[in-house]
Amino acid sequence: MTKKEYIKKQISRTNKKDYENYVITGIIHKLNNLDVKFITQQYVKRPTGKGFMDLYFPQINYCVEIDEWHHLNQQEADKLRDRDFINITNCEIKRINVSESPIDQVNKQIDETVDAIKSRITRLGPAFIPWDVEREFDSDHWIKKGYIDISDDCTFRTMVDAANCFGKQYAKNGIWKGGVNHSEETGKLIWFPKLYANKDWDNSISVDETKIIEKSNNQEMKEPHIQWVLEKGPHRRIIFARVAGIFGFVFYRYKGEYELDIEESNNEYGLIWKRITTQSKTYPRAELKTENT
Amino acid sequence: MTKKEYIKKQISRTNKKDYENYVITGIIHKLNNLDVKFITQQYVKRPTGKGFMDLYFPQINYCVEIDEWHHLNQQEADKLRDRDFINITNCEIKRINVSESPIDQVNKQIDETVDAIKSRITRLGPAFIPWDVEREFDSDHWIKKGYIDISDDCTFRTMVDAANCFGKQYAKNGIWKGGVNHSEETGKLIWFPKLYANKDWDNSISVDETKIIEKSNNQEMKEPHIQWVLEKGPHRRIIFARVAGIFGFVFYRYKGEYELDIEESNNEYGLIWKRITTQSKTYPRAELKTENT
Repeated sequence: MTKKEYIKKQISRTNKKDYENYVITGIIHKLNNLDVKFITQQYVKRPTGKGFMDLYFPQINYCVEIDEWHHLNQQEADKLRDRDFINITNCEIKRINVSESPIDQVNKQIDETVDAIKSRITRLGPAFIPWDVEREFDSDHWIKKGYIDISDDCTFRTMVDAANCFGKQYAKNGIWKGGVNHSEETGKLIWFPKLYANKDWDNSISVDETKIIEKSNNQEMKEPHIQWVLEKGPHRRIIFARVAGIFGFVFYRYKGEYELDIEESNNEYGLIWKRITTQSKTYPRAELKTENT
Repeated sequence: MTKKEYIKKQISRTNKKDYENYVITGIIHKLNNLDVKFITQQYVKRPTGKGFMDLYFPQINYCVEIDEWHHLNQQEADKLRDRDFINITNCEIKRINVSESPIDQVNKQIDETVDAIKSRITRLGPAFIPWDVEREFDSDHWIKKGYIDISDDCTFRTMVDAANCFGKQYAKNGIWKGGVNHSEETGKLIWFPKLYANKDWDNSISVDETKIIEKSNNQEMKEPHIQWVLEKGPHRRIIFARVAGIFGFVFYRYKGEYELDIEESNNEYGLIWKRITTQSKTYPRAELKTENT
């Protein structure tokens, strides 16, 4: 995907809503900076509920909401349970009032928003990493960086791309049902769960994303699975949650590393995973390692 | 209508075409000048054929065409015969190539277009009249100006608004079948024709708009109508052509003053009208005149 295609698709998602299209294109054109990534209609989780933001800038953790915060009712939220929800607890939210503003006031708010974005980029200094659409889904980018941090907004298009960050080169079309063992750090599983109730699993993640509950939806499998994990492990997992992302593709979003809480886990409640770090070390792949040694 | 509503509707016409929406919003936002009127998907007539322009700036006679000139085939042109076609013989046309350009080249072309528009405005100096959406359909605006010129892109929403520019105040909902006599200049009719073949009339206008042919579609009426006009007159007409304009409304567009060519007119070819001026004097309305004298 090129930036051109990406931008086209992002903008096209706003086309049905005329003022939203006007405001979003205004911000993007006046910002005029192809190093800045933006996502339209980003689903977000907040302590006050789920919803979506009209415009989200992941590099600077900045959200724009046009006219009103889109609260989802439970039914809508359930329907969207596989979407790429991100946690925006610390996100700055700029609200733009369109419906009650004359056009010059709408333009003024666009200009203010652009100024705010520019000054956030300036404040970040070298911590601002230019958007690189060609490389952002690429394992090599993260291997070179040395780690994945939850603040990096790290998503992969396939399980293999994610798993390839941790020391091995897997077959291109590989998929794993439960996950794959970390080849460099023993006792760790790289896990690709659906973190919502689905046909096979009744998983969930807390709003602050520090706790995951895992249990089978199959009554015959439920207890044996819990006992198997408790007894055999591994008890630590690097988690890439399976989400339906932009453009209808499936993505795997990095959620951090979680450890099994053996005390809290039981046959009734399921396996309880607690987040212990929001950063994971990456490793060169087998071939690359050979070349380098 | 406010500028806000106008701009929303203009932009919304480009929504189905993603790159076109991106380019047009880019030009409008980067131009950032609410004194400049723009029309999206303006139908135009040129010596080389009919078509439409993606973006048209009437005040500066400047057109933007994104990727390719939209030639209409005859069937399409026929279907659109009642649209608001304008004559752009002397219009500067800027072509923007999107499909083969990477995003930074698209942005560069947007910037060049904005620079070209700005310099045209500067060159016009005081001849550039700021866009006033509240007043542009308003008779008073043209009465105050003292005349209507074809270069003013003058359109009215109703026949009454047009007729009220010439010395009388007509009933708000008035319509006239053929037209209405000029109250200040004897021997002139204010005419509101459909300048295309329709149920009642087989009218047409030449590509350069200097010649109009008028004849009835009703065989019984055809000759009597021609003879009546030839004998009784008036032989001079101020013409506002009925067109289907933006947003699905009907408009009446000023086309200039035409004089009957008595030599060329006959029962077979119909009435031949030749344009003799592209400017018409306006007059204060009856009430206003009373106040001022």
